[in-house]
Amino acid sequence: MASLRIPANIPLPEEDSEQLHKAFKGWGTNEGMIISILAHRNATQRSFIRAVYAANYNKDLLKELDKELSGDFERAVMLWTLDPTERDAYLVKESTKMFTANNWVLVEIACTRPALEFFKTKQAYQARHKTSLEEDVAYHTSGDIRKLLLPLVSTFRYDGNTDEVNVKLARSEAKILHKNITEKAYTDEDLIRILTTRSKAQINATLNHFKDNFGSSITNFLKEDSDDDYVQLLKTAIKCLTIPEKYFEKVLRRAINKMGTDEWALTRVVTTRAEVDMERIKEEYLRRNSIPLDRAIAKDTSGDYKDMLLALLGHDHA
Amino acid sequence: MASLRIPANIPLPEEDSEQLHKAFKGWGTNEGMIISILAHRNATQRSFIRAVYAANYNKDLLKELDKELSGDFERAVMLWTLDPTERDAYLVKESTKMFTANNWVLVEIACTRPALEFFKTKQAYQARHKTSLEEDVAYHTSGDIRKLLLPLVSTFRYDGNTDEVNVKLARSEAKILHKNITEKAYTDEDLIRILTTRSKAQINATLNHFKDNFGSSITNFLKEDSDDDYVQLLKTAIKCLTIPEKYFEKVLRRAINKMGTDEWALTRVVTTRAEVDMERIKEEYLRRNSIPLDRAIAKDTSGDYKDMLLALLGHDHA
Repeated sequence: MASLRIPANIPLPEEDSEQLHKAFKGWGTNEGMIISILAHRNATQRSFIRAVYAANYNKDLLKELDKELSGDFERAVMLWTLDPTERDAYLVKESTKMFTANNWVLVEIACTRPALEFFKTKQAYQARHKTSLEEDVAYHTSGDIRKLLLPLVSTFRYDGNTDEVNVKLARSEAKILHKNITEKAYTDEDLIRILTTRSKAQINATLNHFKDNFGSSITNFLKEDSDDDYVQLLKTAIKCLTIPEKYFEKVLRRAINKMGTDEWALTRVVTTRAEVDMERIKEEYLRRNSIPLDRAIAKDTSGDYKDMLLALLGHDHA
Repeated sequence: MASLRIPANIPLPEEDSEQLHKAFKGWGTNEGMIISILAHRNATQRSFIRAVYAANYNKDLLKELDKELSGDFERAVMLWTLDPTERDAYLVKESTKMFTANNWVLVEIACTRPALEFFKTKQAYQARHKTSLEEDVAYHTSGDIRKLLLPLVSTFRYDGNTDEVNVKLARSEAKILHKNITEKAYTDEDLIRILTTRSKAQINATLNHFKDNFGSSITNFLKEDSDDDYVQLLKTAIKCLTIPEKYFEKVLRRAINKMGTDEWALTRVVTTRAEVDMERIKEEYLRRNSIPLDRAIAKDTSGDYKDMLLALLGHDHA
């Protein structure tokens, strides 16, 4: 469930555009106005506002925001304002660049998005960069990391539901996984094949069989080797595929508890999940940390940035 | 260029449906009528006919054809009548089944279709089979074959044009390929990465550099090991990606020259290329075999099957 709050009576995109245009004018920028509008519109509404703004003022709203805002607040507003697949294309591009390379972000986006949405991200990526995500990921990685990462970003997974699970297959593939994990054959081709090509519902069934038959979850088995970068990535992929809300809770927990908050991770998770499953993530956060997520974020951030994140978390009233 | 001939004045789908309905009725089937209609309508027109047929007679045209026709003629009419991406989904499914497994067909379809069209085939495949093409291919193959085949069917390649080629990259990747090929490291990760992720325009530029700098084409270098199944598949992929019309010419040549024509290959190539590039393939065929393709096919086939293929080749008048 989304945390985003949209007012009962939504102004026309023309009115929103006019208010935003006013917010940029004169001395200083009216950040509160920007938050009160953009942080309370869904993806379709935001894209209408961008289109109307371009038509009425002959300017790109994103470029205006870029000019007027700065720092973490700017990044949060920019990421949020982008269309979800454009935003993911932006984030994955960032993750393949030299100084911002981050395989975790790639795994997160490839494994938590519905298959068709991730495909649209790949189309947006190609339209913008004139290369495919696959060739850039393949070119910038190597060895075992590539063996896992490339199929994760390449395959068009079937978004099957639990009715469509093949129980016999789940049982036999649980055995394959168990054999590989106990032999520490973490880069085994079959292990990678199962995790990178099967539907999420099927993988979930397989991992349930694993747990039932072998006494512990696969991620528990992986714990003892979790110093290894590859094993960490493998664990991340498994969590993102099967328990995304717990994965996101952990990213938030680490971002907030870190000495000097990790604003990039915080901004990324809040802007990408506010319209999707943030309410579930908030539940997980409260359960695991005994403090509500919004309070934890309010303690760790300040100013417009804080207001923007809290608005996306559904904190203030639209 | 397509070989398909469409009449200047196309009857309404209602009229075509009525004629087809009549062709199925009474004693015997009017095969000539079926050919004269279906073999002279493009994909959009055929899909309209199917929709109108279903609405007016409450029957699936494909099932009617299946009931009324048989043998090679049936297969040709059925494959042709399907929507191109449905047809490809059908062909790739057939290629992963136990008794009809055929990795060449998979490579052909994955490497000769535009990226978005192949993606739509994967969607059609999922809608029909409730599994992804990737998981089925990965499950039914192993070893080196899988290493090559899985990324070929997985990646969403960028359909770039020649303006977008990165010349520096082409030069450096030509060197990588040459090093691997001369060391007979045909399953090298970088070699597979380049061929499975780069755009066709980029691969073409890379292979041109290869030829210019190393005196011979990459496929010539591969010739000495062409007894090997994997190397053959690699050569097939390279040809399909860069010179599809020559690849198809060869498939047709082999299908026709074989003791007992290979009707499956013949039907597949004619039905899948008639609306795409059959005129180019005919040119290649004539140049290589000194006999026009339609004459070679007419000598090797007979009856309604022959008439259907020749109609798709543009032989008779619509």
